Amino acid sequence: MSYKTDIEIAREASKRPIQEIGAKLGIGSDHLLPYGHDKAKLSQEFIDSVQNNKTGKLILVTAINPTPAGEGKTTTTVGLGDGLNRIGKKAAICIREASLGPCFGMKGGAAGGGYAQVIPMEDMNLHFTGDFHAITSAHNLLSAMIDNHIYWGNSLEIDTRRVAWRRVVDMNDRALRQITASLGGVSNGFPREAGFDITVASEVMAILCLSNNLEDLQKRLGDIIVAYRRDRSPVYCRDIKADGAMTVLLKDAMQPNLVQTLENNPAFVHGGPFANIAHGCNSVIATKTALKLADYVVTEAGFGADLGAEKFMNIKCRKAGIAPSVVVLVATVRAMKMNGGVLKADLGAENVNAVKDGCANLGRHIENLKSFGVPVVVAINHFVTDTDAEVEAIKAYVTNHGSEAILSRHWELGSEGSENLAKRVAEIADADMVSFAPIYPDDMPLMEKIETIAKRIYRADDVLADQKIRNQLKDWEDQGYGNLPICMAKTQYSFSTDPTLRGAPTGHSVPVREVRLSAGAGFVVVICGEIMTMPGLPRVPSAEAIMLNADNQIEGLF
Amino acid sequence: MSYKTDIEIAREASKRPIQEIGAKLGIGSDHLLPYGHDKAKLSQEFIDSVQNNKTGKLILVTAINPTPAGEGKTTTTVGLGDGLNRIGKKAAICIREASLGPCFGMKGGAAGGGYAQVIPMEDMNLHFTGDFHAITSAHNLLSAMIDNHIYWGNSLEIDTRRVAWRRVVDMNDRALRQITASLGGVSNGFPREAGFDITVASEVMAILCLSNNLEDLQKRLGDIIVAYRRDRSPVYCRDIKADGAMTVLLKDAMQPNLVQTLENNPAFVHGGPFANIAHGCNSVIATKTALKLADYVVTEAGFGADLGAEKFMNIKCRKAGIAPSVVVLVATVRAMKMNGGVLKADLGAENVNAVKDGCANLGRHIENLKSFGVPVVVAINHFVTDTDAEVEAIKAYVTNHGSEAILSRHWELGSEGSENLAKRVAEIADADMVSFAPIYPDDMPLMEKIETIAKRIYRADDVLADQKIRNQLKDWEDQGYGNLPICMAKTQYSFSTDPTLRGAPTGHSVPVREVRLSAGAGFVVVICGEIMTMPGLPRVPSAEAIMLNADNQIEGLF
Repeated sequence: MSYKTDIEIAREASKRPIQEIGAKLGIGSDHLLPYGHDKAKLSQEFIDSVQNNKTGKLILVTAINPTPAGEGKTTTTVGLGDGLNRIGKKAAICIREASLGPCFGMKGGAAGGGYAQVIPMEDMNLHFTGDFHAITSAHNLLSAMIDNHIYWGNSLEIDTRRVAWRRVVDMNDRALRQITASLGGVSNGFPREAGFDITVASEVMAILCLSNNLEDLQKRLGDIIVAYRRDRSPVYCRDIKADGAMTVLLKDAMQPNLVQTLENNPAFVHGGPFANIAHGCNSVIATKTALKLADYVVTEAGFGADLGAEKFMNIKCRKAGIAPSVVVLVATVRAMKMNGGVLKADLGAENVNAVKDGCANLGRHIENLKSFGVPVVVAINHFVTDTDAEVEAIKAYVTNHGSEAILSRHWELGSEGSENLAKRVAEIADADMVSFAPIYPDDMPLMEKIETIAKRIYRADDVLADQKIRNQLKDWEDQGYGNLPICMAKTQYSFSTDPTLRGAPTGHSVPVREVRLSAGAGFVVVICGEIMTMPGLPRVPSAEAIMLNADNQIEGLF
Repeated sequence: MSYKTDIEIAREASKRPIQEIGAKLGIGSDHLLPYGHDKAKLSQEFIDSVQNNKTGKLILVTAINPTPAGEGKTTTTVGLGDGLNRIGKKAAICIREASLGPCFGMKGGAAGGGYAQVIPMEDMNLHFTGDFHAITSAHNLLSAMIDNHIYWGNSLEIDTRRVAWRRVVDMNDRALRQITASLGGVSNGFPREAGFDITVASEVMAILCLSNNLEDLQKRLGDIIVAYRRDRSPVYCRDIKADGAMTVLLKDAMQPNLVQTLENNPAFVHGGPFANIAHGCNSVIATKTALKLADYVVTEAGFGADLGAEKFMNIKCRKAGIAPSVVVLVATVRAMKMNGGVLKADLGAENVNAVKDGCANLGRHIENLKSFGVPVVVAINHFVTDTDAEVEAIKAYVTNHGSEAILSRHWELGSEGSENLAKRVAEIADADMVSFAPIYPDDMPLMEKIETIAKRIYRADDVLADQKIRNQLKDWEDQGYGNLPICMAKTQYSFSTDPTLRGAPTGHSVPVREVRLSAGAGFVVVICGEIMTMPGLPRVPSAEAIMLNADNQIEGLF
């Protein structure tokens, strides 16, 4: 039996005008700013007008540690949203926007897969509604204004060796990681080391995704630390007077984007911060608006639950004053096998013992998630090659761990395949079993917060940080930043900082290489291991095969 | 008497839904891809469907050499378009898109002024429909792929000292003019000198504006010369295999944008190449589509007629197979006075003699334009401080020069003020008096083409070019580029290459500093004097005052 590709399925979809999708949530077409016939932004007036609506139930979709086998987190988010609509619930999903640059490196970038996709997928992988371009412009305006300030006399006394604000581009371009700028003589400024990150790594992206409104956005932009003086005192974006113009550039980008699933259900796709040096969730404004419009809102967090869900709870929920009613933890038979030691090439063969071995990873995530006071359901995202015995092995393991696992076949069947999952998730959400709390309080010292995450989530024995790092954290506490949450940046492939340690490793330590203050976004980034904020292109970039076909359809992007 | 500011007038406009504006030209709303409620792109299907319509009359608006007093070329384009609609003609205008970067440096960027404006002006000065962001992405994808090719072994044997393709950003950022890229060790590539231009200076911009369709676009992108080998043989974009993906990135950007004037008449705003190192006109696809939809299409060219109109005729009309039925040459009393030697501070006082002295500049432009075989009308763009005697002095001069000058008060009165101009322009266009021809043939040697422009348009005695430049031109002829037109890059403030020589200078020479081959756009750029392709920000950038007010309206942008 052969299956259609994602793009074939997407192109066969009977897409409805976006006004029809908005109407399902009570959004009048006057309040939808259209981008083509299939994308729209919600007007701020409308968002303001629904603030007194009752708040829906929030459902977080997260996953085991990712493996090359794929776990299908977005696919499950889409499938669950469609399943909830199928059983008569008013439901919407909230996911992140895709980054343009990586689409030209490796294939991919589709939003979901099979019969659980968000469309229009071409637009979502290209310019979409221009949000990332706006973020790039706002970021680089600040960069230009910093160097311009130095050029015209540097009255703020910026130490040009200590400019912390880099530039960004939404492109995989390793040649820009480290540059010397302002070369070429007097009229071009004072030469200094500089560099570019990819746009999703911009603090502006994190800020946009955590801001409640435009006023909050401007305040946070103003709080960005752009450089230090020789005496190490910080220079803020506000001092450069860039915060107003940056806000103007981000005015439209702040408005949530509405699109649709293959089954014509509403999907908010808004914001996309890196999941390592940032928190990896879609925007607060999209999630909170969706909660005012739908009875159930399904959203997802980046990477595995040790990183994504932890940050969702400790950063996004804490800041936004929201909490999930239930967490759906996605696992696949194939990923369990890889966690159990099977190589990717051998995934085709039934291997119940490997599934059982791999379940240790799943079990630890269940325990961790429960420690936030939220009920957990495991969704087994079904692959057509999975055997019944393998599926039953996961179910049995989860039952033994005091939770429940439900097989979901949305990839193959759309909402027909996710109906059972949807019913159970809705039941749990409706039961109001949640007693959510972040796992550390605001007023815990920063180092203790790091240790709390490392020990309680990663199950590490200790955190290794030299005195310089400890002093830095102490300095920030003295400057009033001690109440910020922690944003961990480590490998997503393991609970530990070693990407090769699958399953549920113990006896490991968490070495902290560097700490960074994202004063605008409002978190302290703790970097454990090599974190790449500007990817490169592979030897044969997928861009070489991307082109328009004779019907002006895009080939090679997916 | 006090006048309203442009932004006050624009905000009071009774904007109509863009579907209504499209309907005036017979564009069904299915074929309008909306961007908000007041902007839309035309679908390619619709453009294809109107190719057998009859072709309207093209009206070019150009101007005397610009002075700090302002001449109001776009304002007159808008006013004339509204005037034509007022007298019952089916008319549309075609103008360029604004660049984002300069808006944060100096105030300005509005499209027209007074009661002759295109709206929504905020969007047009910010992200608009994302065309420039798409061009930036396409340009920088090629840049990243070139360095990536070198990184992975450089099988094309690019001489890294001879990479001709820079990067672009739509921001005034002098620190990026000259950089060293790929620093930081093995994983970041081979360090080399590089740099950024502003997006409007990208050859991709010029290509998009000269392409007839997506197929033509991809062919031209493939033709771009990105680098040279040690043996000086060129490496093309096609060799890097970036042309397909760049075309995909530009798919939507190729579609013309429709907006409206304050009087709710259709305005196409599409493309915006630099007027020095490129040809400075809106896109061919917008102009040609507008000609299929309207009976009269008013468009403009960059800078004064010596640069803008010359390139419009010799590059755009030649390549697109179009010709203006009449040329409107915009002059103002104030600009005539400055050409006659008056300082900006003294412009308020009546000075008929200075007006008469300055008219020499106007006279030469009239002669030049007539040499292309097209009828010329002078539009005196009325300022409220102009005296009758001053206006009459211009009229008399123009009449003596075998043309006619018409006072137009569109800035103050909208189409009521431009009715006379519109009537006369329509009469001339309808009379089919044109016998248009570019002033040099395709097969003239490149150096002779340069001399033809310098002598016939600039009235220079000779062209100064050293042997190296002459050899370069000869090499390009040997390589098959001899049939390309010339794109002159010189100061816009004078017929000569000396910006201080106003009026109608004679006895001057044109020194050629550098020649560049834009093989994709299809012209040879001849640089005479200092040409800046990356502006800087001033000491106090206007960005410092740009912000949202309490009603979330943008302040400080205009």
